[in-house]
Amino acid sequence: MTLFTKTAITAVLSAGIIATAAFAESHSDKALEDAVKARHAQMQMISYHMGILGGIAKGETPYDSAMVDAAAQNMAALAGMAPASMWLEGSEQGFTEGSRAKTEIWSDAAGFEAQFEKLGAGALAMVGAADAAAVGAGMGAMGAACKACHEAYRGPKN
Amino acid sequence: MTLFTKTAITAVLSAGIIATAAFAESHSDKALEDAVKARHAQMQMISYHMGILGGIAKGETPYDSAMVDAAAQNMAALAGMAPASMWLEGSEQGFTEGSRAKTEIWSDAAGFEAQFEKLGAGALAMVGAADAAAVGAGMGAMGAACKACHEAYRGPKN
Repeated sequence: MTLFTKTAITAVLSAGIIATAAFAESHSDKALEDAVKARHAQMQMISYHMGILGGIAKGETPYDSAMVDAAAQNMAALAGMAPASMWLEGSEQGFTEGSRAKTEIWSDAAGFEAQFEKLGAGALAMVGAADAAAVGAGMGAMGAACKACHEAYRGPKN
Repeated sequence: MTLFTKTAITAVLSAGIIATAAFAESHSDKALEDAVKARHAQMQMISYHMGILGGIAKGETPYDSAMVDAAAQNMAALAGMAPASMWLEGSEQGFTEGSRAKTEIWSDAAGFEAQFEKLGAGALAMVGAADAAAVGAGMGAMGAACKACHEAYRGPKN
């Protein structure tokens, strides 16, 4: 997908075409870009903790109950973060640098949030997993939530 | 502070000098570096949400109760994250690329975690702040926790 440039957007507006949701919002460009960076930090932390749990599940790193519990709790905390401060309207792919957010995030907010809820529920269910096999058994639900959310709400690479 | 290079560390070890805590741990270099990146993502998200609340407190952005509550809740979630998965022993400044973590984080873990608890308590107290002045009134406690933690547990710039 081609990234709309500000010049292109200005041209579209000058032509009198109806503005998208991006223009109905009061957030500055900087606020939108900072929101995208915060979301990427959230995703990085989710990926980091998935990596810890995945490594234990695969036997690449030794099972450690304190590490499993910490990673699962942190995953639940990350999945449970309130969307309002980070998923600002107008910060979708094509309008804000670096964003891969589809507009369905806002048009189908309930569906979007349901995937985070599934991820959080899967993470909480993993707290107390007694061995690597139990960690592995819990990975499926979490991975499915990641995959479903990315397929429905994340656009192609920029 | 000079970053110890691996060559320098090898030289020190070869000289028979007692190894530091970094070498008593089983985490790989990659695991330590990934942990530092995850902490930086956590700090970025904390800074992002502090910025939202600070902007509202200063009147730079309009008061918005949903935004205040989301930012405060997310700050509390970030401050309450379990340290075990991210503050890996051996990932202190001088041993892991990019780290500014002082060894006091591990030698005084209770003091370190107490600052995060203060930040989280300050954030939760801000949920429901009814106007920009109330947001401003709550910023002090949160800012004090940030400052105290950085002074005691964060080393100089790399």
